[in-house]
Amino acid sequence: MNFSIIRKTLGALLVFEAIFFLVPTITAVCYGEWNELFIFLICIGICGGLGGLCVLPKTKNKNMYAKEGFVIVALSWIVMSLFGALPLLLTGVADSFIDALFETVSGFTTTGASIFTGEQIDGMAKSLLMWRSFTHWVGGMGVLVFVMAFLPLSGAQNMHMMKAESPGPVVSKLVPKVRQTAFILYLIYTVMTVAEFILLLCGGMTVFEALNSAFATAGTGGFSFTSKGMAYAPYIQIVVTVFMLLFSINFASYYLLLCGKPKEALTEEVRTFILIVFTAITAISLNVHFMGSFEGKGSFADTLRQSAFYVASIISTTGFGIEADFSLWPQFSIGILVILMFIGACAGSTGGGMKLSRWMILSKGGAHEVGRLLHPKQVKKIVMDGRMVEHEVVRSVNAYLVAFILIFAASALLISFDPLVQGDFTTVFTSVASAMNNIGPGAGEVVGPMGGYADFTDVSKIVYMFDMLAGRLEIFPMLVLFTPATWRR
Amino acid sequence: MNFSIIRKTLGALLVFEAIFFLVPTITAVCYGEWNELFIFLICIGICGGLGGLCVLPKTKNKNMYAKEGFVIVALSWIVMSLFGALPLLLTGVADSFIDALFETVSGFTTTGASIFTGEQIDGMAKSLLMWRSFTHWVGGMGVLVFVMAFLPLSGAQNMHMMKAESPGPVVSKLVPKVRQTAFILYLIYTVMTVAEFILLLCGGMTVFEALNSAFATAGTGGFSFTSKGMAYAPYIQIVVTVFMLLFSINFASYYLLLCGKPKEALTEEVRTFILIVFTAITAISLNVHFMGSFEGKGSFADTLRQSAFYVASIISTTGFGIEADFSLWPQFSIGILVILMFIGACAGSTGGGMKLSRWMILSKGGAHEVGRLLHPKQVKKIVMDGRMVEHEVVRSVNAYLVAFILIFAASALLISFDPLVQGDFTTVFTSVASAMNNIGPGAGEVVGPMGGYADFTDVSKIVYMFDMLAGRLEIFPMLVLFTPATWRR
Repeated sequence: MNFSIIRKTLGALLVFEAIFFLVPTITAVCYGEWNELFIFLICIGICGGLGGLCVLPKTKNKNMYAKEGFVIVALSWIVMSLFGALPLLLTGVADSFIDALFETVSGFTTTGASIFTGEQIDGMAKSLLMWRSFTHWVGGMGVLVFVMAFLPLSGAQNMHMMKAESPGPVVSKLVPKVRQTAFILYLIYTVMTVAEFILLLCGGMTVFEALNSAFATAGTGGFSFTSKGMAYAPYIQIVVTVFMLLFSINFASYYLLLCGKPKEALTEEVRTFILIVFTAITAISLNVHFMGSFEGKGSFADTLRQSAFYVASIISTTGFGIEADFSLWPQFSIGILVILMFIGACAGSTGGGMKLSRWMILSKGGAHEVGRLLHPKQVKKIVMDGRMVEHEVVRSVNAYLVAFILIFAASALLISFDPLVQGDFTTVFTSVASAMNNIGPGAGEVVGPMGGYADFTDVSKIVYMFDMLAGRLEIFPMLVLFTPATWRR
Repeated sequence: MNFSIIRKTLGALLVFEAIFFLVPTITAVCYGEWNELFIFLICIGICGGLGGLCVLPKTKNKNMYAKEGFVIVALSWIVMSLFGALPLLLTGVADSFIDALFETVSGFTTTGASIFTGEQIDGMAKSLLMWRSFTHWVGGMGVLVFVMAFLPLSGAQNMHMMKAESPGPVVSKLVPKVRQTAFILYLIYTVMTVAEFILLLCGGMTVFEALNSAFATAGTGGFSFTSKGMAYAPYIQIVVTVFMLLFSINFASYYLLLCGKPKEALTEEVRTFILIVFTAITAISLNVHFMGSFEGKGSFADTLRQSAFYVASIISTTGFGIEADFSLWPQFSIGILVILMFIGACAGSTGGGMKLSRWMILSKGGAHEVGRLLHPKQVKKIVMDGRMVEHEVVRSVNAYLVAFILIFAASALLISFDPLVQGDFTTVFTSVASAMNNIGPGAGEVVGPMGGYADFTDVSKIVYMFDMLAGRLEIFPMLVLFTPATWRR
């Protein structure tokens, strides 16, 4: 294990975190929140100072292998969260360090599960709310991708880190150089965020509201900055719905679109994603409108908008809530939403979940096996977008599914000890699903869109944090970090 | 598709079913149930006559491939169930054909989910109860294994059917000839059933009670023949616990034990099974005794016995219930039981579920992938019992898991339409899990040990029947049956 390169990368990360703190610092200045301003300046000092100390010493050994890549990725998210939790702790809005850390991990992993009640949110300083939303934006595209875009690292270093952090079964390099790829990705990301920000401003949101919403949507995070969530005017909800879906699509597709290759941009995964979204919206709005009977049911147009919002909110793993309470919907619609939780967004997007392309590879593998039962001697390959899916990818996707199930079961067992969930299978199941898929809310009273994670025990909160990190980092970096063989000489 | 060989095999099966009807017929004579006797004789006539008509014409084409093997296996279970449902329908105890079929599919697949309430069971004719329990015994080891043991079929025929029907990722042929293997399996099965029967008689059960219990335990089915389930004396419960576990172990191990190879009998799967059972019993009894607070909690010895009973009942996928209501236990214990539902018994046993060896192959595959991340160039194989697990087996197990998840999700969605389960995620989830793993009861009021499946809609019942058959036949035969390519020329 090359410790010096790990130290150096984590140091660079802390320096970047100090820079990120400028966003809430400026907010504090704008709103005259002097107490918060002071604390953010302290945080900048700590991160900048410590980061600088770690970066400065020269490293002799510049070798970096896959192992180091995974360890760096896992550690960098943990370190980012540890220091990112400081403002919440020092200002005293979080009751304990665990609570502050939970909120920050939830932010960076773009989960959006919160320990704060609506009331607490409404009473919180604007700069702190801005920091929460901004963690979504930083976590959405991945902080190491950011580091890569701006730091001169070697090609091997970049590739190993990219492999470990990029979402989905395969790394989609847009251009031969990883550094340029990272830069293009952040450029597209920024432009889209700005576009949403402007459209929200046009809908009558304040700059603060529009910026927070844009950050939370872009990262597919879902922290709300008021107790009413996204219960805004229909126009705002439609803009957010569209952008939640746009941020769930592989960014490589946007690049191909920009390069004038619309045909190549519409990959099998993107086409399937669009199909699933349309089918789900149609099925849910018909089911809710014609079979649902609950208070506050509106016109079909209302139902359609609300269905579209929740489908987008959940398949993109954002987790925003609106005025309609989906727990009152018929069980079939709830069932579809639960399935969407596990499908997740496209690979290479800012959305979480298992990722659609994984399920496509898995289903193709399954269909393949049935075909082999019928014709044992036939040799066929699994094909996606006209290209053979490599054997290693298929195997790794299968291992991913197994690891997901095992971590899910272990987490659910640990959460079961919590006094809060006794006799409540639904909460146990959906909260773990929500954490591992980086969604935020689950089903049931405790963790529903109106509930919160404050009352769980510290042990449960640590389990959720692990799940959120495992979900965002696509499991393997977390497993590598906790495998003894990693640390053996 | 060679239709003549399918007709002939299904014909033979019907003749055997006519013979199986002798068991309840004799019961009817013993208890003077003349009405039922008459109906069983009619059933014997129908099955024997129709079976004979199908068997008699000579078949020119004796070729049989894997495809025919799967189709025969899937169809034979459906045909068996269709005709096996006749007594319940003709005597009028079932309200509709769907109900009678549900009960019979549940019987043959050794699920044990019932449409009858405890009251209806108490008022039912002994011969009908005996038929229900006997379907478990027939289904437990597999009816085609029975056919194979007694009919002179070609080696290829046997092998293809054996492959399609045998539970677990690989066929465990005890001796080179499939026919002899089938015979030995049924011999061990019968001897063990008789042993349990005698031990239950010693505990004070009547011949009827002991026979029913032994049939239901041996097949790991779980139909109860009184409203009190298995709420018998501790001695009886302990005997049943031990035998539920014994019937969950690969029968090949018993053969090896008989051959004087105790070391080889204790395979990795069996050792892991024993470890899981002991861990689960310990964890649950400690959790329930020291952390549970509910009415009717007994001494530690009681809790230990009850924990052991439920662990055995669920991991063996039998599904028997006793006086203790596990839904009052702490969530952690319930969580363990839900996980055991999905683990299932050993391959090559009469128990259902995913089978432990599948999970072992899956976990080893997962660990393997993490190892490959650390050392990309290392070539290692997945090993079980000192032998390399073949690549095809690993792939097929992975496909099995994916198919299981997809069928699970689709079934849950269809069940969600049922008015009975509105707002009740727990029932949807556990009832589908229970059907696919051939257990019987689920969690929650509707499908708990005290509930029943009578009030579901016919559509839901058909979904459950498909799931039970898919679970018992290990999915692929059912998928092959419904794949259009199977029927194309």
